[in-house]
Amino acid sequence: MAGEPLKPILAALSGQTLSRPPWWLMRQAGRYLPEYRALRANAANFIEFCLTPTLAAEVTLQPIRRFGMDAAILFADILLIPRALGQSVEFREGGPVLEPISPDKGLRHLRLEGLSALDPVYETIARVRRELPARTTLIGFAGAPWTVATYMVEGGGSRDYPAAKGWAYRDPDGFAALLDLISEATVRYLARQIEAGAEVIQLFDSWAGVLPEPLFGRCVIGPTRSIVQQLKQHFPATPIIGFPRGAGPRYERYADETGVDAVALDTVVPLEMARDRLQSRVAVQGNLDPIALLTGGSALEAAVVRIRGALGSGPLVFNLGHGVLPQTPPEHVARLAQLLTEPI
Amino acid sequence: MAGEPLKPILAALSGQTLSRPPWWLMRQAGRYLPEYRALRANAANFIEFCLTPTLAAEVTLQPIRRFGMDAAILFADILLIPRALGQSVEFREGGPVLEPISPDKGLRHLRLEGLSALDPVYETIARVRRELPARTTLIGFAGAPWTVATYMVEGGGSRDYPAAKGWAYRDPDGFAALLDLISEATVRYLARQIEAGAEVIQLFDSWAGVLPEPLFGRCVIGPTRSIVQQLKQHFPATPIIGFPRGAGPRYERYADETGVDAVALDTVVPLEMARDRLQSRVAVQGNLDPIALLTGGSALEAAVVRIRGALGSGPLVFNLGHGVLPQTPPEHVARLAQLLTEPI
Repeated sequence: MAGEPLKPILAALSGQTLSRPPWWLMRQAGRYLPEYRALRANAANFIEFCLTPTLAAEVTLQPIRRFGMDAAILFADILLIPRALGQSVEFREGGPVLEPISPDKGLRHLRLEGLSALDPVYETIARVRRELPARTTLIGFAGAPWTVATYMVEGGGSRDYPAAKGWAYRDPDGFAALLDLISEATVRYLARQIEAGAEVIQLFDSWAGVLPEPLFGRCVIGPTRSIVQQLKQHFPATPIIGFPRGAGPRYERYADETGVDAVALDTVVPLEMARDRLQSRVAVQGNLDPIALLTGGSALEAAVVRIRGALGSGPLVFNLGHGVLPQTPPEHVARLAQLLTEPI
Repeated sequence: MAGEPLKPILAALSGQTLSRPPWWLMRQAGRYLPEYRALRANAANFIEFCLTPTLAAEVTLQPIRRFGMDAAILFADILLIPRALGQSVEFREGGPVLEPISPDKGLRHLRLEGLSALDPVYETIARVRRELPARTTLIGFAGAPWTVATYMVEGGGSRDYPAAKGWAYRDPDGFAALLDLISEATVRYLARQIEAGAEVIQLFDSWAGVLPEPLFGRCVIGPTRSIVQQLKQHFPATPIIGFPRGAGPRYERYADETGVDAVALDTVVPLEMARDRLQSRVAVQGNLDPIALLTGGSALEAAVVRIRGALGSGPLVFNLGHGVLPQTPPEHVARLAQLLTEPI
């Protein structure tokens, strides 16, 4: 074990074991913070909020000021890409609503030229980098192609993904063309994020877990590997964290075949599996249950000890296994910060 | 490989490898069938529909008449148990709605005496047994305690299970008392189902996949093992199928520790894992993607070949990995029946 490196997150992602794990939390900038809710009131809608650099930079920084996480994550949304490609995207109370694309309508209305709409994101990144403490890493992100495609094809969230999976089963080539287009957009978007100052990239494949073979290989492994390869060509030193949520026993294959530097573990990945089969290949990130954070008290303490005990002797970035829930008391996050500085 | 036994499902569940896998489908009695929708119109609400033996028996038999599956599954609902225990349960358009129970309110309004409300279910079973062809097995079922508890505590479906998981984290003993009560009710209910003519039992733990340790062990493994032990004491010859949906790498532990005779595989359990690590311990059931059935055509054919190829050389009951979707064309089920009679 080494002492505190200049940027603990980068050290862990490069394979180092640290004496206390560096940490950040998915959705650490969000509705559970009163200062977030106050700022959110300044934008007419969620998309405007994401695309106004002063506001997006400020909410990115809020949790760092309050809790001192080792990384900030860009405040944005994975659906900015379909919107930039020309699809209509609205954020409503019940979730996002998109004008769904389909094999009939095809991809002809989607244009990579529209990606210039994402320029404000790069300005947000530059602003955040100027403000962050030297030891704090800035993480950029995008949705992985399968997950973004589900929203584009279903027109929003879904329980069973009949349209997206149905398209993938019925017309593998047509669906691959959609994934290729999203991949291309994602590579361009992430390259610009890195150029603007993002030091790590996370790919969120929130719905990776619903795909059996052969779709998992085609829609999750293939496009992720392609994005990683292209980014590594230009930015070999920028670590990439993959989050194939729900991949279960297929985490191992994902770690082997995609080229990511680290995998983010969802809440139910068994710690022994992560230690024995994943941590030898890649760094791991995770995987506190957001409900344990919401609950606090001894449940939170026991869960933190458990994760540090199992994974702390290898490369680990401590995080949740899913995002912070809006009803989480901020004091529980403060308690977590304290727990993570204590020896176990 | 053996020829066709008298009851193919029972043969497979006892560990035999058959030359063609016996089959049935989760939710094979349901809205995708026009004859189901016609009959459903005869009951004022879904609970009355489940508790009217003439209607419930008829919908149980409908798919057998049309497609000749090797098993019928009792038409009922896992929420009949909380209702019988005294909780208010309503089925609405968006899903079930229950008056949620909580640690404050406690369990004092829940009474095992209320289980007599389930008597019509046993009459349904007796009626179905009289009508079924000799080679067709009748499967009874219940929800597993964790899954039933989620509905009882959340008051309906949930995305994150904050109330149920929160209770389990905060007050392990209180939550265990709830699971014990549900387990006790479930054992009594299933014993009566077997006495009435159910030849196999399936335990549906639809939300097993959301629990990390230590909750998975406490809420899924423990209560399931307890139910299996009690049923086996009185009915040692009745096979029990466990369905810990979403358990991923923990299927192996579930197969080892619960005492079930077979595990139902969800859609994303990798076939090699099922073959190498599960089929040597228990029979397996599954795991066609309902979206492949909905899609039909060559996607359906390829998926069937894939599953039979991987799992057909061990004890296998062919099934879906989740229920039939309401929008599934009945002709696709007929095509599946045909595919399953063909040699591969």
